[in-house]
Amino acid sequence: MNAAAIVVIGNEILSGKVQDRNSPFLIRELRELGVPVKRVATIPDEVDVIGETVRRYADRFAHVITCGGIGPTLDDVTFEGIARAFDLPLRPEPALERVIREHVGERITDAHLRMTKLPEGTELLWAEGLPWPATYIRNVLALPGSPELVEKKWRAIRERFRASPFVLCRIYLGIDEAAIAADLQAVDAAFPSVDIGSYPVFAPVDHETEITLECKDAEVVAAAKQALLSRLEPSVVVRIE
Amino acid sequence: MNAAAIVVIGNEILSGKVQDRNSPFLIRELRELGVPVKRVATIPDEVDVIGETVRRYADRFAHVITCGGIGPTLDDVTFEGIARAFDLPLRPEPALERVIREHVGERITDAHLRMTKLPEGTELLWAEGLPWPATYIRNVLALPGSPELVEKKWRAIRERFRASPFVLCRIYLGIDEAAIAADLQAVDAAFPSVDIGSYPVFAPVDHETEITLECKDAEVVAAAKQALLSRLEPSVVVRIE
Repeated sequence: MNAAAIVVIGNEILSGKVQDRNSPFLIRELRELGVPVKRVATIPDEVDVIGETVRRYADRFAHVITCGGIGPTLDDVTFEGIARAFDLPLRPEPALERVIREHVGERITDAHLRMTKLPEGTELLWAEGLPWPATYIRNVLALPGSPELVEKKWRAIRERFRASPFVLCRIYLGIDEAAIAADLQAVDAAFPSVDIGSYPVFAPVDHETEITLECKDAEVVAAAKQALLSRLEPSVVVRIE
Repeated sequence: MNAAAIVVIGNEILSGKVQDRNSPFLIRELRELGVPVKRVATIPDEVDVIGETVRRYADRFAHVITCGGIGPTLDDVTFEGIARAFDLPLRPEPALERVIREHVGERITDAHLRMTKLPEGTELLWAEGLPWPATYIRNVLALPGSPELVEKKWRAIRERFRASPFVLCRIYLGIDEAAIAADLQAVDAAFPSVDIGSYPVFAPVDHETEITLECKDAEVVAAAKQALLSRLEPSVVVRIE
């Protein structure tokens, strides 16, 4: 299946100094493009943990997207981790060195040049308006950590991820979710391709439970919706979206 | 080490319908209590994935905290997953059934009673003001998905997680992080117990880079701070917190 995993790399997130904004952004974007996200992992800046996590997900899912750890300082070890995942050597990339030299000018240091060492076979994704390219290693897109840069880079290359869209139906009910659990189970059994969600609502609004029905086939979602509604008392249905 | 992993369970988060607020809350809380969080995984409502993830983390870390999937509907399979992780049978828990019957009254259904089936050996953590107890299986605390309930339950039991506190020093610099990468590396080598973070700032503020030095020993953090400052031009230091 054309699914994705997101790997957020950064001690600053695990220690609560910074809140991760990249994975919620990428989840929304991928969903809109029709790509289901199956895992999000937030892990420390450690080469072996990055290697193990990327390897596990790259074997299982069509796309892995990492965020963070590709800058010039000692905690930026994502490329080492990805190289470890696929047992690839790190090689200086002359085209990347060229743009970094252009961008940084005379202030260039060994730390900047460290950023040019990429796993062998890394594809550079150039796009207009980006000071330097996005990096793609096998099925792993390595994005930076800063949300501003992630959004910029992602928007420049997102179309290559587009798949067939999801169709979602929401049904709001004025009844406790436990009271319709058996109905949901019956609809789930009859429509195995539909993802069914059931969410109790504790805030004082007009409904007690939200049901979601979702899959990639609009007709199947419509049929599952009818099947569920036919099992419910009409008076408990607050609204359908 | 007394570290923790957080497992967020829910298709609604992976599909972007709901944004996870529980893991940022728990990260902050655990940090404040002195417990480092080493992993956050967001995974689907699937018994085998829950089992595999909980098992991996329970073996490696002192605490695992799960959020979500303990309600009455078909997508609530967290207890099955935890039972699978430890190869435990699910057993009805009479004390839990009693409070659920008290709470729900005559409207009780099989779905409600499904919530009373817990992995054998589950410890019930009762606390004043909670309608029903939190559930603890070996080193796994299973919390609900709703942020309101998570906060309530967590605050009632958080003290059992308290450890020695972290000490954090932040240094704000008016210089690009690449220019001090070698200095950071030297301090890192001299103070291996100190976690050093370096974060470039892209917003227009008074500094370009934020450095964090953190460990559990205030004297060691102070020494690392002095070691770093002695390597920097005083003019690049914007402020220290």
